[in-house]
Amino acid sequence: MGRWEPGARERLVMAAVDLFTEQGYDATTVAQIAERAGVTKSTFFRYFPDKRELLVAGQETLSRLLTEGIAEAPAGVGPLGAVAAGLERASSAMGPMNREIAPRLKAAVAASTELQERDALKSVSLAAAMTSALVARGVPDPIAALAGELGVLAFKRGYVEWSDADRGAQDELAGYVLSALDELRTATASLG
Amino acid sequence: MGRWEPGARERLVMAAVDLFTEQGYDATTVAQIAERAGVTKSTFFRYFPDKRELLVAGQETLSRLLTEGIAEAPAGVGPLGAVAAGLERASSAMGPMNREIAPRLKAAVAASTELQERDALKSVSLAAAMTSALVARGVPDPIAALAGELGVLAFKRGYVEWSDADRGAQDELAGYVLSALDELRTATASLG
Repeated sequence: MGRWEPGARERLVMAAVDLFTEQGYDATTVAQIAERAGVTKSTFFRYFPDKRELLVAGQETLSRLLTEGIAEAPAGVGPLGAVAAGLERASSAMGPMNREIAPRLKAAVAASTELQERDALKSVSLAAAMTSALVARGVPDPIAALAGELGVLAFKRGYVEWSDADRGAQDELAGYVLSALDELRTATASLG
Repeated sequence: MGRWEPGARERLVMAAVDLFTEQGYDATTVAQIAERAGVTKSTFFRYFPDKRELLVAGQETLSRLLTEGIAEAPAGVGPLGAVAAGLERASSAMGPMNREIAPRLKAAVAASTELQERDALKSVSLAAAMTSALVARGVPDPIAALAGELGVLAFKRGYVEWSDADRGAQDELAGYVLSALDELRTATASLG
């Protein structure tokens, strides 16, 4: 049952999340993050240009993986099938570190309007990325926008369930996200 | 064809939006907004506690109207019927001033990451408000979350079409928003 050992990048992210929770995003400096992580400031800057990018870095990766997964889904699948392919690929980028910091990240976001805004823009941007990738596949506009929103909702719901679940389990995010998408697909029949 | 004449509150909002577009949100001061609007700083503070609230004020009204409309929808209507009632009530709060500043607001948001984040949090908050109001009506969780997202999407799409349409027309936002909601309801059948 070896515990996962974080490297410098992961230690920096965890230190930042803890400091944001304790003293707020604005009051936290790069020097404090580096100190808490046990690295020098120059090490911080080898990984991130500033504290903002430390939070945004993951978003660009997610966005790219979602887009690639949708673009490369088999031609025959419908809009939600393509979204499922994107979600599956993006989920693979979220590993034990993401699960471990999830509760602290949640607390940090709950305590800071600025982080809530940043988090909200992340959701909106991921929906827009999925919508564009679907339009590029030939999915017409209102359906593409709807499927993009469903994708984000599934990702958020699956992420919450995954991070709330017993963290000793070896199960991966993808299963949670895809089952959330299935639930939402079923729910569309009951909208009235 | 009398042109709508803005009062001090409306002039302050329009001045702020213009200044945010020209020089950015951060660089704009309350003194500059008041000067551009032709009022004193004390007049500004009679309407808004700070420049941030100037943007957020409208969100709280929208959220309240959406929630009330959903809560007071007839017992027999389904989730999307209740969302339609909320959207109709919230749309009534958006008048000629909102339509007039829409293009400048869009430009200001496009130019500022901070305003994009604020705008994104507004979307996420409105979806959460609608979801809670639906849950309070007894709509089960995944359906309520889905209907809340559809409501926000309809509101945003209707708002864009309304503000892009010929602004001489007397037509109201509600019609655009409700037809966007209908389009989205139809689109759910094509998700695959």
